[in-house]
Amino acid sequence: MQKNITLAHGNGGQENNELIEKIFYKYFKNDILEKSEDSALLNIESSQITFSTDSFTVSPLFFPGGDIGKLSICGTCNDLAMMGAKPKYLTCSFMIEEGMSLRELEKIVRSMKKELEINEAKIVSGDTKVVPKGSVDKLFINTSGIGEVLYSGISAHNLVEDMAIVVSRDIGAHGAVIFASREGISLDSNLTTDSASLYPQVKALFDANLEIKALRDATRGGVAAVLNEWAKASNICIEIEEEAVPVRHEVKGICELLGFEALNLANEGTFVLALPKEQAEQALEVLKKSNPNAQIIGKVTNQYPQKVILNSSWGTKRFLDMPSGELLPRIC
Amino acid sequence: MQKNITLAHGNGGQENNELIEKIFYKYFKNDILEKSEDSALLNIESSQITFSTDSFTVSPLFFPGGDIGKLSICGTCNDLAMMGAKPKYLTCSFMIEEGMSLRELEKIVRSMKKELEINEAKIVSGDTKVVPKGSVDKLFINTSGIGEVLYSGISAHNLVEDMAIVVSRDIGAHGAVIFASREGISLDSNLTTDSASLYPQVKALFDANLEIKALRDATRGGVAAVLNEWAKASNICIEIEEEAVPVRHEVKGICELLGFEALNLANEGTFVLALPKEQAEQALEVLKKSNPNAQIIGKVTNQYPQKVILNSSWGTKRFLDMPSGELLPRIC
Repeated sequence: MQKNITLAHGNGGQENNELIEKIFYKYFKNDILEKSEDSALLNIESSQITFSTDSFTVSPLFFPGGDIGKLSICGTCNDLAMMGAKPKYLTCSFMIEEGMSLRELEKIVRSMKKELEINEAKIVSGDTKVVPKGSVDKLFINTSGIGEVLYSGISAHNLVEDMAIVVSRDIGAHGAVIFASREGISLDSNLTTDSASLYPQVKALFDANLEIKALRDATRGGVAAVLNEWAKASNICIEIEEEAVPVRHEVKGICELLGFEALNLANEGTFVLALPKEQAEQALEVLKKSNPNAQIIGKVTNQYPQKVILNSSWGTKRFLDMPSGELLPRIC
Repeated sequence: MQKNITLAHGNGGQENNELIEKIFYKYFKNDILEKSEDSALLNIESSQITFSTDSFTVSPLFFPGGDIGKLSICGTCNDLAMMGAKPKYLTCSFMIEEGMSLRELEKIVRSMKKELEINEAKIVSGDTKVVPKGSVDKLFINTSGIGEVLYSGISAHNLVEDMAIVVSRDIGAHGAVIFASREGISLDSNLTTDSASLYPQVKALFDANLEIKALRDATRGGVAAVLNEWAKASNICIEIEEEAVPVRHEVKGICELLGFEALNLANEGTFVLALPKEQAEQALEVLKKSNPNAQIIGKVTNQYPQKVILNSSWGTKRFLDMPSGELLPRIC
């Protein structure tokens, strides 16, 4: 096999099949994928499923703590987990630029396999396109997924006064790492992306019998986008204690450079949850087993319906708006 | 709203939501999509479903008889239909180049809506990425779909001696049209892509109680790729009567220009089926209601297992191999 992807690898014929066999089947092989023809046949046990899609266009393809492959599995599995579902079946589609190194592609596929194992999920169908040089920047990946709903009743519409708002770890790491990698900024620290599969943490929360009312991973638009969506959907106010929001100092540094709020930075393995305040400490205890930086950051009030307020330690208040403008493109 | 896509339209924040509301929801709106958060919640009635994905990178975006939007819905719905399933739920993901015209995007989304209606399928979840100029050529679309299996037992492994091989219409129109559009060749004819949703035809075949054993739309790699896969999977020989293969003269002309077999050209709304030879005429009758060029093109034999043979009207024979080499990139 050649060392680089050629247009023939996307021809629907011989070379295409060779690429599928030698790279994709090698890592993704399972009983369903083997029998898959134009589409995969699945036997569904649960009557309620979740279905989600995400395309990944991140640049660079490799960054501290992850790569586009890891991101592509975490992203879709997390979207399923955030609806209380166990990620089960994924499709993946590769859009590859002619000339891409096969060694790099294989490294990315290997990351995908590793992350699939954490979720106990399977790739059941796929697609490969190769486009001429210049038609795409190296590689885009789409993953779509089906999850079986284990815990129902989670929704952005569920928030009511007095609930606590909790984040699962320190925020903004992914945005900061991608920006630094792209701009060649050496971080002089061990800061890595937060990219991670969240199903195990979601399961632990539900296994502890916590009444999680809303759950969302804070991807593009960051924690600020999640909180604003919730405030609007539930017609309540969310008040955040600025000092309680966990942000690593390296991320704060990048934010100053960018002129961004850490609350607007993208995360790929960090989630926000809302639950009755009496259960907040218990939720924290569960989350801290995965990351010691989990924190209660605020509460639901009726002060300014549909708004998010940041309370500073100096006693001042300001609105935290829905992010707007360019932010960072190609973050995921 | 601006006239062109900006990076802000992919920020996960305010402008992103505006694009979703004004373009995507406008055309795709339905009860499930409205309630969709990180993923869509679906109630599944059938215990067996099919799941498929396809990314569309076609160039140009618009061509005689279709556009990337039509292709993106037909492609995934057809992959589901070819497994005997009713297309039900789709996700779509747009990867858009900064600067793309919103009017063109809307035109594409409108084509998608029209084709969804033919399939009686719904978009239930989506994703939008905007990448800086030069990172992708205008627009890629991924669609993934779930179908409910109505007719089971279709497989490439089912072919046995004496079955008939039927094509649903004349072949190669899509490949020929894309090639001509891209190269600026004026066809001086009304040749259009064959791109079409095939579920209605599949349903008609099954409603006629025909025992369809194998079914496949002849996309990249064309009819030649399908026949070779079947011959291999079922360990039989397929013999094709070259003269019986329906090819329009404009397509033949393009083939001569390209030095290609029409049997290798991509189709986007043409399928091949295998069934007991006694039922071939009845199948033809059903198919001719959609297209008068449907044809019985060959049969399954044991002459050269795993091979496809082309019999010419002069009495000569040659192997029709699995396509290889570059063929036409960005055909779908």
